[in-house]
Amino acid sequence: MDGDSHLTSLQNPRIKQLVKLRDRSARDETNQFLIEGYRELLRASDQQHPIDTLFICPELFLGTNEQSLIQKLVNRGTKLWTCTAPLFHKISYRDRPDGLIGLAPQIHRNLADLQAIVAKKAAPFLVVAEAIEKPGNLGTILRSSDAVGLDGLIVCDRCTDIHNPNVVRASVGTLFTVPVIEAEGEETLQWLRKQNIAIVAATPSAKAEFTEVDLSGPVAIAVGTEQLGLSERWMSQADIQVRIPMNGVADSLNVAMATTLLLYEALRQRKAH
Amino acid sequence: MDGDSHLTSLQNPRIKQLVKLRDRSARDETNQFLIEGYRELLRASDQQHPIDTLFICPELFLGTNEQSLIQKLVNRGTKLWTCTAPLFHKISYRDRPDGLIGLAPQIHRNLADLQAIVAKKAAPFLVVAEAIEKPGNLGTILRSSDAVGLDGLIVCDRCTDIHNPNVVRASVGTLFTVPVIEAEGEETLQWLRKQNIAIVAATPSAKAEFTEVDLSGPVAIAVGTEQLGLSERWMSQADIQVRIPMNGVADSLNVAMATTLLLYEALRQRKAH
Repeated sequence: MDGDSHLTSLQNPRIKQLVKLRDRSARDETNQFLIEGYRELLRASDQQHPIDTLFICPELFLGTNEQSLIQKLVNRGTKLWTCTAPLFHKISYRDRPDGLIGLAPQIHRNLADLQAIVAKKAAPFLVVAEAIEKPGNLGTILRSSDAVGLDGLIVCDRCTDIHNPNVVRASVGTLFTVPVIEAEGEETLQWLRKQNIAIVAATPSAKAEFTEVDLSGPVAIAVGTEQLGLSERWMSQADIQVRIPMNGVADSLNVAMATTLLLYEALRQRKAH
Repeated sequence: MDGDSHLTSLQNPRIKQLVKLRDRSARDETNQFLIEGYRELLRASDQQHPIDTLFICPELFLGTNEQSLIQKLVNRGTKLWTCTAPLFHKISYRDRPDGLIGLAPQIHRNLADLQAIVAKKAAPFLVVAEAIEKPGNLGTILRSSDAVGLDGLIVCDRCTDIHNPNVVRASVGTLFTVPVIEAEGEETLQWLRKQNIAIVAATPSAKAEFTEVDLSGPVAIAVGTEQLGLSERWMSQADIQVRIPMNGVADSLNVAMATTLLLYEALRQRKAH
């Protein structure tokens, strides 16, 4: 490492800029975001997502593979800065930082990008996430989407920014492996109609349980806000309404749980076909 | 409300005692815990869980049913204290408090209590949660356990205290509806053997997928820590090993997600029988 590149102060302009990116307004303005953590950066790197700048603190590394990841990124043009441990603890978004924070351009895909993906699929398998509020839920939905090999996650009328540090963290880096698309609700609805992709919505008032309907065809599973569920726009347009059995006192599951159940049920049916 | 019962200061001994109960050591010592939130207190009340003391702040109430819950609790002997809004914001564990915090005796059930429950069941349906670290995960597992109508959740070698305020919150009060049992691992294993309840463990190395094995009989689904998974003790004793398909880059799901998938698959099979 270059001795001149050591950062020690929160007053350093580069550090100030990094800390600012915790706020959405600064992210929107600069079109950049933070990727913290070895696993997250590795997955970004494996997916060829560019990392503009990397801030490291070698004393905090937890493993032995950090240097090879750093070398790979530096070879691709990533700028490298080394921070002292006290500084790194201050700039980290975590309780136990692992010594790596990257600064990267944001991910922006639209329905045209998704079109290219689904064109190759016999039965596209999508999720529409409408106005999810909690970054942890969006991250968990990404994690489950990665696990089932989803073709695309459409984030509609976004409430939580997909570039929020807690989304990156909760997704464990799957933000880089799942094709994530941002689009308006109406535009998405029309696009799905044109592709003949059935809209699936979960609601307690549905007659059929989610394990009793055919989810093996082209489907987009639509899920809504934590508080209010899916909006009337999506609910009224749903081709398939399903119910998740609730045998206890609680009337609904967490949105990430419900999404995961629907995703794995669709996967089970797709394997059987 | 009695005008004399208004509390305004963090220095009040009753308030000091309440705040202390955020810490496990104070909870263990007093055998009490906090139940915050209307929904949580309602579920505790519906399950006849005693509430010793109730701290309220009517200005912060979100609904119109709070008074009837308060009246019911007071009729049963709950002591009532009214707090000013600034004080309530300080004692609340939430960003947006809803004006109700109860102080209650802890829940303690053991395997003998569970024995009485499973004796009535043709095919007992249990979860063993070993050393779960994050309160949010334990709360989510409770929520899913309530949803599938689980006969009992056995918390083994507890790491997270089931009385942690974040467990109560993440469980949305299902801590009171699911029979939660605390027991040592070895004792639990022997008890399950004696009851002829099959131990089900999820591991990436299993041959069968979780949707391909019979989960309709007497089963205990065993799940382990977020970092390391299930311990060797449980893994080696598992009668049924299953795999959750992971088709993406990530190698595992969050423990609460994995548990929810296994619970709903068992429920699906139980309905078909």
